[in-house]
Amino acid sequence: MKRTHIFAKPPCITSSAAVGGKMEADGPMGKYFDKINEDPYLSTDSFEKGESKLQKEAMLHMMDKAAISENDIDIVFGGDLLNQCAGTTYGIRELGIPFLGVYGACSTMAESLLLSAAFVQAGYAGKAAAVTSSHFCSAERQYRYPLNYGGQRPPTSQWTATASGALCVSAESKAPYVRGFTAGMIVDPGITDANNMGAAMAPAAWETIHCFLTDTAISPDAFDMILTGDLGKVGSRLLCELAERDGFDIRSVHRDCGTMLYDFDTQDVHAGGSGCGCSAGVLCGYIIPRIRSGEFKNILFAATGALMSPTTNQQGESIPSISHAVWLSHDLNIHPNI
Amino acid sequence: MKRTHIFAKPPCITSSAAVGGKMEADGPMGKYFDKINEDPYLSTDSFEKGESKLQKEAMLHMMDKAAISENDIDIVFGGDLLNQCAGTTYGIRELGIPFLGVYGACSTMAESLLLSAAFVQAGYAGKAAAVTSSHFCSAERQYRYPLNYGGQRPPTSQWTATASGALCVSAESKAPYVRGFTAGMIVDPGITDANNMGAAMAPAAWETIHCFLTDTAISPDAFDMILTGDLGKVGSRLLCELAERDGFDIRSVHRDCGTMLYDFDTQDVHAGGSGCGCSAGVLCGYIIPRIRSGEFKNILFAATGALMSPTTNQQGESIPSISHAVWLSHDLNIHPNI
Repeated sequence: MKRTHIFAKPPCITSSAAVGGKMEADGPMGKYFDKINEDPYLSTDSFEKGESKLQKEAMLHMMDKAAISENDIDIVFGGDLLNQCAGTTYGIRELGIPFLGVYGACSTMAESLLLSAAFVQAGYAGKAAAVTSSHFCSAERQYRYPLNYGGQRPPTSQWTATASGALCVSAESKAPYVRGFTAGMIVDPGITDANNMGAAMAPAAWETIHCFLTDTAISPDAFDMILTGDLGKVGSRLLCELAERDGFDIRSVHRDCGTMLYDFDTQDVHAGGSGCGCSAGVLCGYIIPRIRSGEFKNILFAATGALMSPTTNQQGESIPSISHAVWLSHDLNIHPNI
Repeated sequence: MKRTHIFAKPPCITSSAAVGGKMEADGPMGKYFDKINEDPYLSTDSFEKGESKLQKEAMLHMMDKAAISENDIDIVFGGDLLNQCAGTTYGIRELGIPFLGVYGACSTMAESLLLSAAFVQAGYAGKAAAVTSSHFCSAERQYRYPLNYGGQRPPTSQWTATASGALCVSAESKAPYVRGFTAGMIVDPGITDANNMGAAMAPAAWETIHCFLTDTAISPDAFDMILTGDLGKVGSRLLCELAERDGFDIRSVHRDCGTMLYDFDTQDVHAGGSGCGCSAGVLCGYIIPRIRSGEFKNILFAATGALMSPTTNQQGESIPSISHAVWLSHDLNIHPNI
């Protein structure tokens, strides 16, 4: 059985919304967010509660834009970077929607999206939602140092986005279509430096993208973008080199959410953005509306996740990574050879 | 759309395996485990690495028993209680199977099982595996105190099982069948005591079981067991009271994995067992082989999870909980009214 699954009757994304923080507002993607929160606490008393509120806001905006309520959604897939995925469980607990929690680190939006589309296609849900988030302050103190410590960041490090994205997949027939997916497998290149996630994740991203391109026999040029999540500058360069080694030139079509979210000239984010909210924000705020309008015809969205924890890192373990790919299109012109 | 989904052509569980620790060996379920590890480190240098090894062993035993290899499995769904689900990602990283990580706390086996069955039924996978684990020592120091501290445990507290369970769902037609599922929704009764998970989870368990029984119009008496995961003594009593309030008498058929795993007379586990490995171990080691043999005809497996984290608990938050139900049967006699 081929790893890539192409939907016979592709479901579609009927609505999406992105919510961000101040840093995200100041970047090139700022104007595409549905809501910006200047206050990192979002009027709560902790960063973690603020992150949960980000997810709730993204879900509410997404439902508002589609003129639907929580009763119209049959299932929600979601997760985040916080221990025990608490950003999600506390964010959506009041909505009363059946919930299946996922964990894919920064690949969570791709995983949630593919599961939503798979459930709608199979008839398990009429409408399925995907939601995820990250928050600079809650991630920083959980994964690295207390914020007040002011820890030094090496050039390969990335900046965790304060953002959330939510979308709804439905069994209708209109753009953007979810055409199919390739579920990733864990790839561990042996990197132990938790400040160099890009290098740790690039091989997993290429493994999945390579599998998708080979399984479907679609040329990279057919895509407006092969859009990875959060490889940043370092990982993006490595990805293109790995592709070249396998005889694929993806340089002209490759883009990375981690390098799109911030302005490298004016924002001190080192190798770029990261976090579940980075690719979710770029996808839900910028990409999906442009596939709907026809500005983009085909996007291969391959979010990436580093599956380590601070504990495994402190115990000297290397960083296993994963990437899931989802093909989104404006029309149904391309027929993959599968 | 009804929340409960019944499969038109039910897939089946072709293999399962359970691996446990010393406490689990000494309990009434001890003889049903495929392997017992007396060493809590499993010959590694940390409890966390030991937990990962539990999962790997469960997967290897499960594949051995079905005479299949990792190349025969199209996807694996798995997760655990460790931060960033590291027990799973490090446990299965060498297997090279496409992986979708899930997080449902102690409900993880039910969630992984329903996703595996959903993927097989829809044709996204020929064979799908579900795996999960917990480990007393890694959980204790992550959620509560360092082991050496010897913290006092109140009577409502539960004992995290050192165990892993793995199973494989396949598109064949033989017992045990996976007949359908009800995905749970988050229920938060406002409990803030992290040493009383049973009380926090009982309302979520009943919400899901009630939904399944109502959607399908199957009487509780049709089941050999309505089997919850990890409610323990306190939560089990509450569950039966909640059912009674809604006019359902489930006392004669209700069993709980948390009260089955250990011997209350000789083992000091207070309110019972808990952890993803508790319901996974009981299901994969004891229940599934007995549905296969025909000793049990119908089981409603409703594992439960408490979706808090130590951080949310310290910030004064209450404990949101969830339960997912999966119906397993020996034959296809009962036709639900759905």
